[in-house]
Amino acid sequence: MNRNQRESSGVLVPRSSGNSAGHANNGGNNGNREICICVDAMGADFEPACAVEAAAMALAADDRLRLQVVGDSAALDPALAGLSAGISARIERISSTDHIAMASSPAEALRHGRASSMAQALDRIAEGSADAVVSSGNTGALMALARYRLGTLPGIERPALMTEFPVVGGSAWVLDLGANIGVDAVRLAEFAVLGSAAVGALLKRKPRVGLLNIGSEPNKGPDVVREAARRCAATDIDLVGFVEGHDVFAGAADVVVCDGFAGNVLLKSAEGAIAMLLAEIEQAGSRMFAGPGLRRLRTRMKRAYDPARHNGASLLGISGIVIKSHAHASVEGIAHAIGVAALEVRRGMLPELERQLWANV
Amino acid sequence: MNRNQRESSGVLVPRSSGNSAGHANNGGNNGNREICICVDAMGADFEPACAVEAAAMALAADDRLRLQVVGDSAALDPALAGLSAGISARIERISSTDHIAMASSPAEALRHGRASSMAQALDRIAEGSADAVVSSGNTGALMALARYRLGTLPGIERPALMTEFPVVGGSAWVLDLGANIGVDAVRLAEFAVLGSAAVGALLKRKPRVGLLNIGSEPNKGPDVVREAARRCAATDIDLVGFVEGHDVFAGAADVVVCDGFAGNVLLKSAEGAIAMLLAEIEQAGSRMFAGPGLRRLRTRMKRAYDPARHNGASLLGISGIVIKSHAHASVEGIAHAIGVAALEVRRGMLPELERQLWANV
Repeated sequence: MNRNQRESSGVLVPRSSGNSAGHANNGGNNGNREICICVDAMGADFEPACAVEAAAMALAADDRLRLQVVGDSAALDPALAGLSAGISARIERISSTDHIAMASSPAEALRHGRASSMAQALDRIAEGSADAVVSSGNTGALMALARYRLGTLPGIERPALMTEFPVVGGSAWVLDLGANIGVDAVRLAEFAVLGSAAVGALLKRKPRVGLLNIGSEPNKGPDVVREAARRCAATDIDLVGFVEGHDVFAGAADVVVCDGFAGNVLLKSAEGAIAMLLAEIEQAGSRMFAGPGLRRLRTRMKRAYDPARHNGASLLGISGIVIKSHAHASVEGIAHAIGVAALEVRRGMLPELERQLWANV
Repeated sequence: MNRNQRESSGVLVPRSSGNSAGHANNGGNNGNREICICVDAMGADFEPACAVEAAAMALAADDRLRLQVVGDSAALDPALAGLSAGISARIERISSTDHIAMASSPAEALRHGRASSMAQALDRIAEGSADAVVSSGNTGALMALARYRLGTLPGIERPALMTEFPVVGGSAWVLDLGANIGVDAVRLAEFAVLGSAAVGALLKRKPRVGLLNIGSEPNKGPDVVREAARRCAATDIDLVGFVEGHDVFAGAADVVVCDGFAGNVLLKSAEGAIAMLLAEIEQAGSRMFAGPGLRRLRTRMKRAYDPARHNGASLLGISGIVIKSHAHASVEGIAHAIGVAALEVRRGMLPELERQLWANV
């Protein structure tokens, strides 16, 4: 992975920021104003230096962006020293001496995590010096610290994780992805309102919301999902009804609402199936007889379904823009997560969420 | 869809019957003895004539097979009349005057379904004239009627639905697929024992069993899944631990055990993602510049991931081999489901299930 990949693949731009089918132009409340995003560099499996490389990649792709990078200075400083003067001038290094381990419980993070890079990053939103935070750290800890330091939006009991993924004709967003397991109908309806408002801010139109189920008829599936449908019908979201796994990838809804267990299975199953097919295409494309048609397909499919291009899940329901990057994310993936944060800030997702939650909750 | 497709694609042979990686030869208890399978021709969305076409396809591919076809004689007779004498001599037509509607509840099926094609087909197993049943009808009704007419295996409270699907390096089997929603740890462990015994009979080796979860560490996921893991550890199945959606398609387990909601989401999500990629390959392969490499890939992928090739879910836990074919299955798909039934009979799945359940329950 090197920084030159950026120019050719343009991977930094989240799918929803383009002019692809069904997506509005970037005409958000915050336009293209300069924004500042704080990156917790101590969370990922990779070295903090990767976060610096990702920061440089994100900055090169977005000239109205500034970054703060929080981490161990012994690891960050050499990486920062290797950057061009123009890029490093746009990065503020914040030194931290502690970080949250992947095995820590949320309670441990709350008790002992005050000096951690994650807590310091979230404090930057609280004090107003950063517009958003990106962290690759422990999800439970990030959820707990974000709730504690930033609070939740009106009527929201527990935040949900939401991510964008490719479907026929564009993108869909699914929530929850595993932060909440075994939720009741009230919470599912809450996720639907949250997801509708958040994705509405990104698309600049009212998104179609589907409830994940194992049949599309109204009498199908568990009671909790059917009760959630009744509750959603009483809100002003555009509910398209129940969607099944295959409907989701056919583009039947912009927002797919489900329990965290089902959402996690939905996405990881699709990722696994896509990886299986991509490996076959890859193998076929590298054979001598492949020909230019197959090679072109291989390049296009690898790019379109690159996991780095869907990295960056939003913690919805927090009073702040907080993006969870995957712990195994590549440099390109972390840069994409920074791009997701920038897009949510520029499209005014947080004020839109507040506005709609006051109306619906 | 016509019968000639059969020769070129060989679609009738279930993946697990071949000599593909990780699969045993066909050396089952019942070898290649002549068997009889009863097909309920009134269940699918298509006309009963499609079931006759599928029956002919299945018979042409397997010369140790006889079939019974149950349905409305006005619809079946013209279709049967169109078959060659050699094929039609191997089909016994059983006339029925009633069938179970897709919208019927299991209770309605039990009360009023006595004369239905589905009940008549199941009676053929009960009276010993057929070794297995294939039906494309209402799943809830099939489950209820099969329990009532054939009973369940020792210690099994409710049957589960299991199907084979393609993963890297071969196949995996997942259960439950939607027959049981919101199950407890005892039931999940029951599914694990059922699935292990059934797939063990097909593979002629002890299969690796994974519990579907949203993390692979022992402390991850819902209580019910962690408790099921503890219960499975007390049986003699080969438990590989928790598997996530992407692990499943990487071939991490032969048997994937989960609640019916999650299993349904797992498979339909993968189906949707695969269909999305296949459509892109299809489109690219039909372009003028495609070239032979791309055309070959297109043909191979379409065949490998054809939904007809995974049609046929086993009702595990019933005292009989009962296969549920998809209501929208093609002629080729119904023929595949008949092949699944034949394989389960020949590999002696039912006696193997009985043997292992007496040992484990």
